Amino acid sequence: MRIRRIASLVGVVIFFMGASMLLATAVGVWFDDGSANRLFLSSIISMALGAALFFSNPKRGAVEELSLKDGFGIVGFSWFGASLIGAIPFLLSGTIPHFAYAFFESASGLTTTGSTILADIESLPKGILFWRSFLHWLGGMGIIVLSVAILPFLGLGGMQLYKAESPGPTKDKLRPRIQQTAKLLWGVYILISLLCFVLLMTFGMSWFDAACHTFGTVATGGFSPYNASIGHFSSPSIHYIIIFFMFVSGVSFALHYRALIGRPQAYFRQAELRFFVTLIALATTAIYLTRLNDGMTTEQNFRDSLFQVVSIITTTGYGTNDFELWTPFAQMIILGLMVVGGCAGSTGGGLKVVRILLLFKYLKVLLNQQLHPSGVFVIKLDGARVKREVIQNILGLFLVFIMLHMAASAFLAFLDVDILTAVTATLTCLGNVGPGLGEIGPTENFLSIPAPGILVLTLCMIMGRLEIFSVLILFLPQTWRR
Amino acid sequence: MRIRRIASLVGVVIFFMGASMLLATAVGVWFDDGSANRLFLSSIISMALGAALFFSNPKRGAVEELSLKDGFGIVGFSWFGASLIGAIPFLLSGTIPHFAYAFFESASGLTTTGSTILADIESLPKGILFWRSFLHWLGGMGIIVLSVAILPFLGLGGMQLYKAESPGPTKDKLRPRIQQTAKLLWGVYILISLLCFVLLMTFGMSWFDAACHTFGTVATGGFSPYNASIGHFSSPSIHYIIIFFMFVSGVSFALHYRALIGRPQAYFRQAELRFFVTLIALATTAIYLTRLNDGMTTEQNFRDSLFQVVSIITTTGYGTNDFELWTPFAQMIILGLMVVGGCAGSTGGGLKVVRILLLFKYLKVLLNQQLHPSGVFVIKLDGARVKREVIQNILGLFLVFIMLHMAASAFLAFLDVDILTAVTATLTCLGNVGPGLGEIGPTENFLSIPAPGILVLTLCMIMGRLEIFSVLILFLPQTWRR
Repeated sequence: MRIRRIASLVGVVIFFMGASMLLATAVGVWFDDGSANRLFLSSIISMALGAALFFSNPKRGAVEELSLKDGFGIVGFSWFGASLIGAIPFLLSGTIPHFAYAFFESASGLTTTGSTILADIESLPKGILFWRSFLHWLGGMGIIVLSVAILPFLGLGGMQLYKAESPGPTKDKLRPRIQQTAKLLWGVYILISLLCFVLLMTFGMSWFDAACHTFGTVATGGFSPYNASIGHFSSPSIHYIIIFFMFVSGVSFALHYRALIGRPQAYFRQAELRFFVTLIALATTAIYLTRLNDGMTTEQNFRDSLFQVVSIITTTGYGTNDFELWTPFAQMIILGLMVVGGCAGSTGGGLKVVRILLLFKYLKVLLNQQLHPSGVFVIKLDGARVKREVIQNILGLFLVFIMLHMAASAFLAFLDVDILTAVTATLTCLGNVGPGLGEIGPTENFLSIPAPGILVLTLCMIMGRLEIFSVLILFLPQTWRR
Repeated sequence: MRIRRIASLVGVVIFFMGASMLLATAVGVWFDDGSANRLFLSSIISMALGAALFFSNPKRGAVEELSLKDGFGIVGFSWFGASLIGAIPFLLSGTIPHFAYAFFESASGLTTTGSTILADIESLPKGILFWRSFLHWLGGMGIIVLSVAILPFLGLGGMQLYKAESPGPTKDKLRPRIQQTAKLLWGVYILISLLCFVLLMTFGMSWFDAACHTFGTVATGGFSPYNASIGHFSSPSIHYIIIFFMFVSGVSFALHYRALIGRPQAYFRQAELRFFVTLIALATTAIYLTRLNDGMTTEQNFRDSLFQVVSIITTTGYGTNDFELWTPFAQMIILGLMVVGGCAGSTGGGLKVVRILLLFKYLKVLLNQQLHPSGVFVIKLDGARVKREVIQNILGLFLVFIMLHMAASAFLAFLDVDILTAVTATLTCLGNVGPGLGEIGPTENFLSIPAPGILVLTLCMIMGRLEIFSVLILFLPQTWRR
C-alpha cells in the first residue's frame, strides 16, 4: 500500500468535506443561532488539513496505476477520515463534547445510518442540525458516486474501486467509462433530491425542514431535526411523500437513470425490484394485521405500517410510530427487514435485496442437490445465468456479516449492555438502519452505550457501508506489506 | 419414495421403542410407583403398532436397493415416528396429558435436546422419569449407530443413509462395511456409559440417579430426574465426573474407538478436537473472569464455569447454576457455544466444531481472495485438502440454519412469545441444547409457549438433529413423486 499516495487522496475528500461546511455556516448565519462562528472555524481547519494532506505527496500529480490494495486503502480511509472531519463541528460547537460520541454521530450521518446519541435534538442550533443532516446527503452521494467520479477525476479510474465501494453484487455498466456513469448517477440523485425538497415545501414544510428531511430521505439516512422524527408532522401527505422518496431511494439509481432516458419498462424487468416490492407488500400486510385492534382508522394503520416497513427495509430509520410498542411478531419483521436492506446501487444499506433473492434461489438449489447429488442446477437472475463465484461471494458476505454481528454484540455485552440492546444495536449499525430495540428504540438514543461500545458501533457502521470486506482487509498484516 | 417400504422399516424402529419400554416398566415395578401398569400398556401398544407397520409391506423380506429419496424418508420418518411413540407413556400415565407437550418432551429426549415442559419433575413416578431419561440414551444410540447398524441389518446398507444421518461433514471410514462400523461405535458408546454409571454410583449416587444421569450425560441430552438438575448434587466429584463424560461424549466416537484399539495419539492429531478444547478453555476463562466478584471460592467459580461451558458446547444442557443471573457477556458466550455444538461423530448437536473451524478457515481465504482475486487458496484439515464442495455444503447448512432460526423465531413471536425467549428457544432447540434465556432459562421450562409454538420447536429439534436438510427435503413436492 502506498500510504502517502492514499493520504493525499484522502486529503482531497477531507478538503471537500471542509468546503461543504461552508453551506452549514451559511445556514448558521441565516438563523443567527450562534453556530456560524464555530462551523466556519471547523471548515477552515478541515480544508487546511485536507490541503496539507494533499500536498504532502510530492507525486500527487502523477497518473499512476493503483493496486487493489491501494484501492481498498483509499475507500476505507476516505470514509474514516471524512467521518472524523465531520465530527469537528459537533466538538467545536460543544454540542457533542465527547470525541467518541461526536465521531459516532458524524459516521452515522455519512454512512446514512441515522442512529443518534442526542437526547434532545431540538435544542441544537440550526446550523449544526443542518450539518448533521447534510452529512447524510454527502454520504449518499459518496455511496453512489464519490468513488467512481471524484477519485477518477484525480486520475484514479479503474473498476477495482467500483468493486470495492459499489453496493451490491451486480455491476451495472451504464456507460463504458466509470466517470461518466458516476456523473449521470449524480444527476439522478440531485434530481430526485430536488423533487423531494419541492414537494415537502409544497405540502407545508419550511425550507429548512424540507432540506434536512430531503437529505435524510434520499440518502436513506434517518436524521431529523425533531425529537419525534417524522412523527413531528401530522400531515398524511408529508408521510406519503417521505414513504415515496424512501422507496425510490431504496431502488438502484442506475434503474432510475434508464427510466429517465426513456426506458421505464426497465423497472418491470428487474427481479430485484419485484422482490423488493413483494417484501414491502407482505411485511406491510402482516404488520397491518397485528395492529387491527389498536383502535385507529384503516388509513392510519396502513400509513403507519407502510411507513415503518419502507423506512426500515430501505434502512432509512425514520419513524412516525414507536415500534417497540408493537407485538413481538411485528418487531421480528422489523428486525428481518434490517438484514435485507435496499436494492443494490441504491443509497440503502443492509445485505441488499438482490443478495437475499439469490440466497433464496440458492436454498432451492441446495435442496434439489440433496435429492440429485450429480445434477447441475443453474441460478438465473433477470434471464442471465449467475456465476457460481457470485453466489460464493454472497455466502461469504453473509457469513462475515453474521460473525461480525456476533463478535460486536459480544463486545457490547462485555460492557454490560443487555443482550437485546447489544444484538439489535449491532444489527442496526451494520445494516446502516438507525433505531433498534431495548435501550435504543425509536424514541431512545445510543447515549446509554459506553464509549468503547460506541467506537465499535462506529466501526460497524463504516464496515456495513463499505460491504465489510474492504474494511476487514485493512486489518490484515499482508495488506500493509509493499 | 416407496412409502410402504419406508413404513415397514419405521415399524421396526417403533417395535424397538416399544420393547425398550419394558425396561422402564421393570423400573416402575421395582419402585412400585404405580407407573408400571401404564408403561406396560404403552409397550404393548407400541410393539403391536410397530409389528403391524412392519407386516403391512408384503415385500418386507426383499433386499432391494433403496433410492436416496427412500433414505431420507426412512431417516426422517423414523425420528418422527419414534418421537410420537415415545410420547405414549407420558400421555397414558397422565403425567403430560396434552399431546403437543408430550410429543415435545419425547422428541426432546430422543433428539438429546433436554428441553422440558415439566414444572415439577420430581413429582413424576420413577418409571416415567426413567423412560424420559432412557429416551436420551436411545436417541444418542440412534445418532451414532441406529441408522448405520440397525437399518443395514434389515438389508438397508449404503452410504446414502450414513450421509443423511451422520452428524458432521467428515466421514470416518473405520472399517469398510458400515454395519461393522456401527457395531464398534455402539460398543464404545456402551463402554463409556458403563464407566460413567459406575463412577457416579461410586461417588454416592443411587443406581437410579446414576442411570438417569448417565443417559443424560453420555447422550449429551440434559434431562435430570431433579428440578435443580445437577445442582441437586453438592458433591464436587459428581460435578467433575459429569463434566468429564459430557466432554468425552462431545468428541467423535470414532476417535475414541481408535484410542481404545491402541492409537491414543489420534486424539492429538485431530484439528477439530484441538479447536474444541481451545474453545472450552477460552470460554471457561472468560466466564470465570466475569464471576470474580461474585463471592465464591476459586474452585467453585472454576467448576461452575467449566461445567456450564462444557454442558452448553456439548449441547447437554445440564446446570449447576442459573446462567440467567450471569453478566450479559457470559450469556452471549453461552449463546455462541450453542451454535458451535459438539464434534462431528459425537452425540452433541449444534453446527459441529469442525464446521465452525472450517468456516473460520474459509473466512481467512475469503479475505485473502479480495486482495488476490486470481489466487488459488487451499483449505486443509488434518493435513488433507478440503474440497470446495464440502465448504459450499457447510455454507449452505449455515445459511439454512440461520434462515430456519429466523423463520421459527418469527413464528413464536407471532404467538406473542417475547423476542428474547423466541430467539433463544429456537436456537436451543435447533442446536439440541436444552435451556435458553427469557422465559425458558435453566430454572424455567417451555410450558409458557403455546401448543403451536411447541410443535414448531419439536420440528426444530428433529431438524437440528438430522442436519436440517434431510427433514426439509420431505417438504419438497418432487420428493413425493415416484
